Amino acid sequence: METLINAIRQYIPLTPEEIQIIERLFQSRRLMEGAHFLEEGKVCRYLGFIEKGLIRYYISDEGQEKTIYFNQEGDFICNYQSFLPQKPSVVAMQALEDTELQVISYEDLQIFYRQVSGGERFGRLGIEQVFLSSSEQVRSLYSDPPAVRYQHFLDSYPKLVQRLQQYYIASYVGIKPQSLSRIRKRLTP
Amino acid sequence: METLINAIRQYIPLTPEEIQIIERLFQSRRLMEGAHFLEEGKVCRYLGFIEKGLIRYYISDEGQEKTIYFNQEGDFICNYQSFLPQKPSVVAMQALEDTELQVISYEDLQIFYRQVSGGERFGRLGIEQVFLSSSEQVRSLYSDPPAVRYQHFLDSYPKLVQRLQQYYIASYVGIKPQSLSRIRKRLTP
Repeated sequence: METLINAIRQYIPLTPEEIQIIERLFQSRRLMEGAHFLEEGKVCRYLGFIEKGLIRYYISDEGQEKTIYFNQEGDFICNYQSFLPQKPSVVAMQALEDTELQVISYEDLQIFYRQVSGGERFGRLGIEQVFLSSSEQVRSLYSDPPAVRYQHFLDSYPKLVQRLQQYYIASYVGIKPQSLSRIRKRLTP
Repeated sequence: METLINAIRQYIPLTPEEIQIIERLFQSRRLMEGAHFLEEGKVCRYLGFIEKGLIRYYISDEGQEKTIYFNQEGDFICNYQSFLPQKPSVVAMQALEDTELQVISYEDLQIFYRQVSGGERFGRLGIEQVFLSSSEQVRSLYSDPPAVRYQHFLDSYPKLVQRLQQYYIASYVGIKPQSLSRIRKRLTP
């Protein structure tokens, strides 16, 4: 819970009373490796914060899983395209390691917005970041060559390269695992 | 100014004092037909609200202009990918008719967020809508066939079909003007 409080405090100040409100609204959740935070076709009912672990976002495309995003310790996780309108998700979110989270339901997040004085500001700044990151990802996917995308991956997730299976990284970059091996060889001095 | 106040009131309540703050922070601006609200490579410094007129968003792709979005009376306009981080824009925004706007600068919007009690909430709800609409547009562009995209255009902008040149609509749908004519003939009973 303390890392969550500190993460929120990077955006807004919190009084002791507001910390108590947050402690009441968020709940602990554990996901075993391989378990889903969100399944395709279900409504994303929770916003999460990762205390420990690793989450992969993926979509199914003609029977194949395409990995589109990762989140790790210290990150908020959500599929906002499903969460905001409370509609079924096309994206699935899966724990790649045993993962510990603090989660808040859609309904309790509305209480957070009302009862925490900087709550709306926190929400605005958060969704602004998600919007910018999502726009940049779409731009990169359709404009950048694979080697540039792999370099972006290394820059964005410097420690994840050790923790992820190669085929997840290749899928995120948008290429076959063999092509990723060739790119990696060329990048190694 | 009154239509702007009413548009903001659809999201948050406003006191008479807050209406005065808004009247001080927003300025009137007129754009002649063909003039730009934002040029490619420039930083988007203003959020606008259209009182009258029509704005087209476009990008340059290998020397060709691709129309990606429209806004009309009653809409807020902005290129948030440039506005939020205050970075140069890849998107240009041009008036297709003589257009009357109320605009607020990036700096004054921060004052709005602080001085209007529901200001942060207004900002959060606004950027949430922009995020959802932008995500849906990307999905449609890469998944929907042209006829479906044209139908979406008609549903999203029911009155614009009379006001727009055919090649802007074709560009938005992602096809050549001749292909658009064929789709329109098929849709006409």
